[in-house]
Amino acid sequence: MSKNPDGKQIKVGILGATGTVGQRFITLLAEHPWFTIHALGASSRSAGKPYVQAVNWKQTMPIPSIVREMIVQECRPQHFVDCAIIFSGLDADAASEIESAFRSSDLAVFSNAKNYRRDPSVPLIVPLVNDSHLSIIPQQQALHDPPLKKGFIVTNANCSTTGYVIPLRALEKAFGPIESCLVTTMQAISGAGYPGVPSLDIIDNIVPYIGGEEEKMEWETLKILGGITDGDDGRKTFDMHARHPLRVSASCNRVPVIDGHTMCVSVRFQRRPPPSPQQVREALVAYTPEAQSIGCPSVPVHAIFVHEEPDRPQPRLDRYYQDGAGVSVGRVRQCPVLDIKFVVLANNVSIGAATSSIINAELAVLKGVVKVE
Amino acid sequence: MSKNPDGKQIKVGILGATGTVGQRFITLLAEHPWFTIHALGASSRSAGKPYVQAVNWKQTMPIPSIVREMIVQECRPQHFVDCAIIFSGLDADAASEIESAFRSSDLAVFSNAKNYRRDPSVPLIVPLVNDSHLSIIPQQQALHDPPLKKGFIVTNANCSTTGYVIPLRALEKAFGPIESCLVTTMQAISGAGYPGVPSLDIIDNIVPYIGGEEEKMEWETLKILGGITDGDDGRKTFDMHARHPLRVSASCNRVPVIDGHTMCVSVRFQRRPPPSPQQVREALVAYTPEAQSIGCPSVPVHAIFVHEEPDRPQPRLDRYYQDGAGVSVGRVRQCPVLDIKFVVLANNVSIGAATSSIINAELAVLKGVVKVE
Amino acid sequence: MSKNPDGKQIKVGILGATGTVGQRFITLLAEHPWFTIHALGASSRSAGKPYVQAVNWKQTMPIPSIVREMIVQECRPQHFVDCAIIFSGLDADAASEIESAFRSSDLAVFSNAKNYRRDPSVPLIVPLVNDSHLSIIPQQQALHDPPLKKGFIVTNANCSTTGYVIPLRALEKAFGPIESCLVTTMQAISGAGYPGVPSLDIIDNIVPYIGGEEEKMEWETLKILGGITDGDDGRKTFDMHARHPLRVSASCNRVPVIDGHTMCVSVRFQRRPPPSPQQVREALVAYTPEAQSIGCPSVPVHAIFVHEEPDRPQPRLDRYYQDGAGVSVGRVRQCPVLDIKFVVLANNVSIGAATSSIINAELAVLKGVVKVE
Amino acid sequence: MSKNPDGKQIKVGILGATGTVGQRFITLLAEHPWFTIHALGASSRSAGKPYVQAVNWKQTMPIPSIVREMIVQECRPQHFVDCAIIFSGLDADAASEIESAFRSSDLAVFSNAKNYRRDPSVPLIVPLVNDSHLSIIPQQQALHDPPLKKGFIVTNANCSTTGYVIPLRALEKAFGPIESCLVTTMQAISGAGYPGVPSLDIIDNIVPYIGGEEEKMEWETLKILGGITDGDDGRKTFDMHARHPLRVSASCNRVPVIDGHTMCVSVRFQRRPPPSPQQVREALVAYTPEAQSIGCPSVPVHAIFVHEEPDRPQPRLDRYYQDGAGVSVGRVRQCPVLDIKFVVLANNVSIGAATSSIINAELAVLKGVVKVE
Repeated sequence: MSKNPDGKQIKVGILGATGTVGQRFITLLAEHPWFTIHALGASSRSAGKPYVQAVNWKQTMPIPSIVREMIVQECRPQHFVDCAIIFSGLDADAASEIESAFRSSDLAVFSNAKNYRRDPSVPLIVPLVNDSHLSIIPQQQALHDPPLKKGFIVTNANCSTTGYVIPLRALEKAFGPIESCLVTTMQAISGAGYPGVPSLDIIDNIVPYIGGEEEKMEWETLKILGGITDGDDGRKTFDMHARHPLRVSASCNRVPVIDGHTMCVSVRFQRRPPPSPQQVREALVAYTPEAQSIGCPSVPVHAIFVHEEPDRPQPRLDRYYQDGAGVSVGRVRQCPVLDIKFVVLANNVSIGAATSSIINAELAVLKGVVKVE
Repeated sequence: MSKNPDGKQIKVGILGATGTVGQRFITLLAEHPWFTIHALGASSRSAGKPYVQAVNWKQTMPIPSIVREMIVQECRPQHFVDCAIIFSGLDADAASEIESAFRSSDLAVFSNAKNYRRDPSVPLIVPLVNDSHLSIIPQQQALHDPPLKKGFIVTNANCSTTGYVIPLRALEKAFGPIESCLVTTMQAISGAGYPGVPSLDIIDNIVPYIGGEEEKMEWETLKILGGITDGDDGRKTFDMHARHPLRVSASCNRVPVIDGHTMCVSVRFQRRPPPSPQQVREALVAYTPEAQSIGCPSVPVHAIFVHEEPDRPQPRLDRYYQDGAGVSVGRVRQCPVLDIKFVVLANNVSIGAATSSIINAELAVLKGVVKVE
Repeated sequence: MSKNPDGKQIKVGILGATGTVGQRFITLLAEHPWFTIHALGASSRSAGKPYVQAVNWKQTMPIPSIVREMIVQECRPQHFVDCAIIFSGLDADAASEIESAFRSSDLAVFSNAKNYRRDPSVPLIVPLVNDSHLSIIPQQQALHDPPLKKGFIVTNANCSTTGYVIPLRALEKAFGPIESCLVTTMQAISGAGYPGVPSLDIIDNIVPYIGGEEEKMEWETLKILGGITDGDDGRKTFDMHARHPLRVSASCNRVPVIDGHTMCVSVRFQRRPPPSPQQVREALVAYTPEAQSIGCPSVPVHAIFVHEEPDRPQPRLDRYYQDGAGVSVGRVRQCPVLDIKFVVLANNVSIGAATSSIINAELAVLKGVVKVE
Repeated sequence: MSKNPDGKQIKVGILGATGTVGQRFITLLAEHPWFTIHALGASSRSAGKPYVQAVNWKQTMPIPSIVREMIVQECRPQHFVDCAIIFSGLDADAASEIESAFRSSDLAVFSNAKNYRRDPSVPLIVPLVNDSHLSIIPQQQALHDPPLKKGFIVTNANCSTTGYVIPLRALEKAFGPIESCLVTTMQAISGAGYPGVPSLDIIDNIVPYIGGEEEKMEWETLKILGGITDGDDGRKTFDMHARHPLRVSASCNRVPVIDGHTMCVSVRFQRRPPPSPQQVREALVAYTPEAQSIGCPSVPVHAIFVHEEPDRPQPRLDRYYQDGAGVSVGRVRQCPVLDIKFVVLANNVSIGAATSSIINAELAVLKGVVKVE
């Protein structure tokens, strides 16, 4: 079992613990080598009940024994003061206020909610891509009055953004800036939470629209793949990939698949001539993000697994590979309109959600951004 | 009921009558105002049996009474000499030889098979797009020794090509040449015939690959949207859109939908500035192909139905509109990478297959290419 | 087109017009030879809006033009005074009060809701089975103070009950009392309304439980198949099949099918020896309910269609036969435990819901129970 | 890791290694504490190739490294002489001849094929039910000329039979003979192998028929739950539950579920009064088959897991519990027609197929029926 820097168990709390993302956090954290679930937060309707009575459990593994009888709390900072890390699986309508309150109470929040993703002092981190953005945290803490010592918010990206920026980052690292990217998604129903998509809307059907999703993908990609600019006044700013403008066009579809977002991606590089499909394949295989090299326990062996078979990746066959912590890429070939096209599969409930928050927290521990006492 | 030019019932034969496409031909032709099913052809295994015993009927309406007890024949021209029109729903492995033999026997064949689509003397006709290509027929007949009087082969396009070239044609008519087109398909299982896709491969799954499909879409689009060039020697040649080179990039996926291919399409026009989304919408609504204006009985009222709702078209809700003879377009909007993007839905077993062959035959009758005695 | 007794158009109103059942009423009534949609009722949230703006339309045919711009009303009797017939597609939580108020206002209500099914003065009518129960209406009207002249409530049965009591009735008519019946259902998701069953609960899954459904099937069957007893005081009572006690055991399952409830039924007859499978088949084919013989326009030609193929009926292939107004039976064979077993398919949104209400109203018109002025 | 009696690795061979059941054998045996995969057999088309090239792998875990490059053999005994145990996943059309030839070569065959299930000298063993039937093996060996020393055939049951005889056996053990049993199945598509059920036949559909399945369930149940009678001549005979005649009525349906057969079961006991639902629940929980008590490594902790929630078991949530080696029972309640009814879920590809063969082999090793050198 891997050791965290101090060899101690780190107490963590989970907000929105009865929801879909919360259940996934619990499943993953129950087995985590560093983190111990210490507190669970949910709505006042659930507060005061043992977890097993508060939750409508929907995972295939049983409720982990460590949380089964744990009493659910309301999402107030005072119930979580012993937690070095807070994971938030809150719904968007509750996340703004609660996450802010937790930060103000000097708690470190790793949020899966969308609310603070566009905040100019909050990093939007896909752990296999841009953990360097953690460097904005001190600035975020300094904005608070009085300045925070330990509290901050880190967000992770939308489930569909997360999957495809990993290979995009690998390509930019190997071949320089991407100039344009056209992505069409086929997204699993679990991405919409529970109860989520009515079965009458999706069995034997495709819904070629997911509200707000295309905008999220087009915007988040720029923040994630872009860098951080140091201003003359010492202030850091996300540059939104501005030095090499990147145009992204997303078309998002809901499909009758339980888990796993499949995406058809075409890219055009700035560099001429562009890399060949074989060079692209090699660059994807070779990609090693920092989270792997510094030893985060939840990162997969292959950040990007490249399939050679003509008909892979497929969500049902490939989504649980490496517990869904990596992404699968296949069908790398030339695009007659842009340069290169390929298919990406990402497990939206793992790397696309809870797993990303957890690796972000691991990175923050290893980099000393989270203070473990 | 609409009248054909001569007011007579026209006898037709169906090849591959027991297969998926053949069943669809029968369903449509049993109610046709001009055409009367006169002969059915299938493999020697079925020949000699009443149709009801030879077929594994898979349509939701019962077997039409007109064919129920009709004796199935082998696919030999002598059994079809009384037929003014032959519809072919043959599989690719049988179509080359049989369709050629029928043409040599001076029979007019409208084929749904792929075998002759790339033949330089055979038109590849999407009836709501390029019926003008029927003008190549005399040249095809003259190539035969001795020249044919009535025999020829007309093909229609692949089901996925058919759906999206209709709006592309409408756009080129209104705004001039399209320069590039990127299309990602989500194709129904019925496109693979019966037994077709194993259920273990597609329930709760996406298969991001359909053998040969992307090449077909990329090539057929050029033949269909291109014109015919008259050479100095009087010979006609398909120009493959060569005067305004058109780059097409297709990504084809199989999805768990029974009927109806959904496609996400992005296009870039030659003309600068490009039309606005609203202009595109209006051009799509206004598009009136010749098949409508000259009165083919099987054409729909709306060649292209444009949806205003943000989440349409959807295959389950929209695929049977107008009996699947038109196409549905929705979500017309700007594309940040190319110019305009939109979603197309086409019923692959109707306009994408048998309905196209039938309208092609109606066009040929009205234009005098088929000689009705 | 069939004529109603007076040759007049009959004005009808629809309660719950924006819901799933309401939409189905509209689809069916828009084409009805006798009935004209005159008023639409829905919740106060929808009231005052044109129907097209109030509804989230989910049918495959477009909204009928007759109701498209009709202003939706609140469900108050004063808005419906001109309607000779009220069809109710109300949810159970609203139906008790509203339907009672409409009856008190002397309006004739045909309800698809469950609320009054167990009322001892309200008939529970499956139109192809027990229209004779309309004879209780005068007693229902007399209970009101002052007695009603035209107002009453008629209910139809639960969608799963409806489908299988039709063949049970045919068998009792031919062979005398059934002693026990064991039925296992596989019910479509549309039976749960919209949004209904979450897709995460039913794709690649079976839910072996539908709250309250088994009790409904076991109880309703007795009321429907039983007779009416005339007491010494002249009062009529539903006898609940008591003279020949009938034991029913239902196991209800939800399956990933859009429309169409499939049921495996085993029965034991009182009569020894029991009829043979062939005799049962013949009795089912021969069954002609009164609704057929007196000319209700919405009844199907075959109340019960008997399949000979070993693998039918199947919901996807057979549910729309006769517009779903009849039922399909197949696989009639001996049961090693009881006497005979077979498979029933009934379209839960047609004969299982709106179609039943409509035929009940047709019966009431033809029998003079509804007074048409 | 559990030890086999001799503490040695036992070499095993797999027939039909490239098929669906064969792949499942490989997945399970690659991790087995006693058994080592030593030889793979398949058709002549695959023979001579490395396994990775011969197989169309369809499992979610990758091909185990131990077999990846193993050369596939033809299914001839000489290639398997070093194997103490042969697992057969052969198709029915090949199994009769090959399994017989292997037995004649003194090899111990554990077969998942149906061919020898009805053979009066071959035991049909569901490992959590009737391992005592292994006692017929010496008689089977003696029938051969010359008598076999190590060779025999043991079969396991059909996937649907296997699931429900486990709770039936638990009930007979606790409460004495069952008199009649009515079972309606909802069977997963994986039960039909690959390619198996065409997607056009099962998406949005139920097929209320599986050829031969009902007969198998009705017959196999008697052989499995019955005992063995010792005749006056010392010959053993399967008594087919004859001393307490058991009537079984099965209705088998195919449903759109990937893995996991769900069954609604009603039973009537001989004993009056019958046990209560609570007594039945307790008997199911308490059931401990011999395979558990003697330490087979592949048996689950709970042979029967009893759910208390009203809506369980469900295939998608419960099929992988204990790796599918046990069965789930829920909804135990009174049956108004027979005595008790309940729902069973069994993983058809685990306990319903390969897992059963493997536990049978473990039992045979522990009981000394398989001679390990």
